[in-house]
Amino acid sequence: MPYYVGVDLGATNLRAAVANDDATVLATDKRPTPRGPTGIQVTEAVLDAVRAACEDAGVTPAEVRAAGIGSIGPLDLAEGTIDGPANLPDSVGTVPLVGPISNLIDSERVHLHNDTVAGVIGERFHADSNPDDMAYVTISSGIGAGVAVDGEVLEGWDGNAGELGHMLVDPQGRRTCGCGRDGHWEAYCSGNNIPEYARMLAEEDRGVETALPLDDADFSAKHVFEHAGTDEFASHVVDQVGFWNAMGVTNLVQSYAPLVVYVGGAVALNNPDQVLAPIREYIDESVFNNVPEIRLTSLGDDVVLHGAVASAITGGTGERTR
Amino acid sequence: MPYYVGVDLGATNLRAAVANDDATVLATDKRPTPRGPTGIQVTEAVLDAVRAACEDAGVTPAEVRAAGIGSIGPLDLAEGTIDGPANLPDSVGTVPLVGPISNLIDSERVHLHNDTVAGVIGERFHADSNPDDMAYVTISSGIGAGVAVDGEVLEGWDGNAGELGHMLVDPQGRRTCGCGRDGHWEAYCSGNNIPEYARMLAEEDRGVETALPLDDADFSAKHVFEHAGTDEFASHVVDQVGFWNAMGVTNLVQSYAPLVVYVGGAVALNNPDQVLAPIREYIDESVFNNVPEIRLTSLGDDVVLHGAVASAITGGTGERTR
Repeated sequence: MPYYVGVDLGATNLRAAVANDDATVLATDKRPTPRGPTGIQVTEAVLDAVRAACEDAGVTPAEVRAAGIGSIGPLDLAEGTIDGPANLPDSVGTVPLVGPISNLIDSERVHLHNDTVAGVIGERFHADSNPDDMAYVTISSGIGAGVAVDGEVLEGWDGNAGELGHMLVDPQGRRTCGCGRDGHWEAYCSGNNIPEYARMLAEEDRGVETALPLDDADFSAKHVFEHAGTDEFASHVVDQVGFWNAMGVTNLVQSYAPLVVYVGGAVALNNPDQVLAPIREYIDESVFNNVPEIRLTSLGDDVVLHGAVASAITGGTGERTR
Repeated sequence: MPYYVGVDLGATNLRAAVANDDATVLATDKRPTPRGPTGIQVTEAVLDAVRAACEDAGVTPAEVRAAGIGSIGPLDLAEGTIDGPANLPDSVGTVPLVGPISNLIDSERVHLHNDTVAGVIGERFHADSNPDDMAYVTISSGIGAGVAVDGEVLEGWDGNAGELGHMLVDPQGRRTCGCGRDGHWEAYCSGNNIPEYARMLAEEDRGVETALPLDDADFSAKHVFEHAGTDEFASHVVDQVGFWNAMGVTNLVQSYAPLVVYVGGAVALNNPDQVLAPIREYIDESVFNNVPEIRLTSLGDDVVLHGAVASAITGGTGERTR
């Protein structure tokens, strides 16, 4: 029986899974992503995780037919590497992935994707209807999307199609994004940015009374969602975040005409109703194209790992034999 | 020698061209698009135009190997028809296109696209470098885009991928779009909307002094561009239009990661510097992805017709044999 490996390489943790050919996961391994000193340590940790998952599953790496990788970016698809990951120290530099994994499993079939592309491959593979036109949006420490149009999963020449967190949504540019530019979607709605956005709104609305611990160093998006419904200002912040999310999803729908939009990432998974309801409500009024279904990802925290496995099984497409 | 037919079906005029297999146009026909009473009259006019172009070229319809069509929408790709075109009377209803043209030329090879998709097929075919990742944006009576990603021209399940004129750009929704929704890109920047947008800005800025004939019934986008540079208010309008265009193009770049964006349509063709310069200037500050080249279409008014011919020659892709 052929086996398949999936790798989810994040800025904090990396995971590997071994699965059989119906995508049943036989074993997984999880470990912290090394913060250098160079990219080689990251590569070694990925290889160790794959070896450990294989051993746990009772499979030798040589029995693995193909591997898929969903990774933080930026990717160099031609070289099969990550090239200076934004959320790891600068000294990390280049992280070779496709070559070393290919050597380990003795197979050329290694598919590298950014994590959101792996996400849409996972949704596509596991969806009831396996639609050819769908999107996966992650709302987490950043925001991004993976998209399939006309049955093709879009990558872009440099792997950057679907970098929707850096869409310009606020023409006034009141918040500066982590990328240094003003007014981008994720500067208002990602987990990292919601607290700062709440502080900005409180400042604009001087004298606001709120139970939110705006001045605490550990003030987080969690507080905002927890207090919404009982605290008027927190409700206002959640509503504003919902509006920007709807604006981002509106523009996604006009770009790609998806039939279904799956939403995942920690912010959405931890607050599904508060995140999804405003998107559903606003896009009904703002979208000219067919209004797609907005669904919470069915694969939870594991969407990238499952997507990487699905990529390995389907040759990078997520398309099941029908 | 095989011959190819291209059709550009617009709301005002329709055109047909006959070309040989290196895309040299041998003859064209142009006539007004009938405004009904039903869709059959539109179909008949298209067939008459194709017959007339063939006769002029000394080619019989049976010698035509394939046809391409770039059309106003909305399209029904499965049926090969236009389904209630927005800019023709309601009585027009369904306009059969693929079936009747297929019968006329006795060939199954008939490719139907919306006009912006035909546009990107034309740019792709005629581009020096034939890039796999590019976009064509039309700024005309409406705004829309045709896009190629990873070498695939995106259509969308219903032909509506790239309906970017209906992206939400103004979160304040100050202008209502022709589609009835607020804040869409084309409500600020299309040829039809620029005069109303100028009036809105003048109203917001009470007592503004301007040489623009704001109160005249025939006040048009042309006046705005003509007076910019000498009239302060007209310059302000052109600058604002440029900003919204840059915001739309920014979001296009984040969606698709193109290497080149071609801009066409009457508004851009008539005012190339005034339209392109602000896009180039602003996107440098707003785009996170690689900043693409912004070029005026090289195919002018004929981009859809040339794209339709290119589609016929290349089987709907615009991809030249390299």
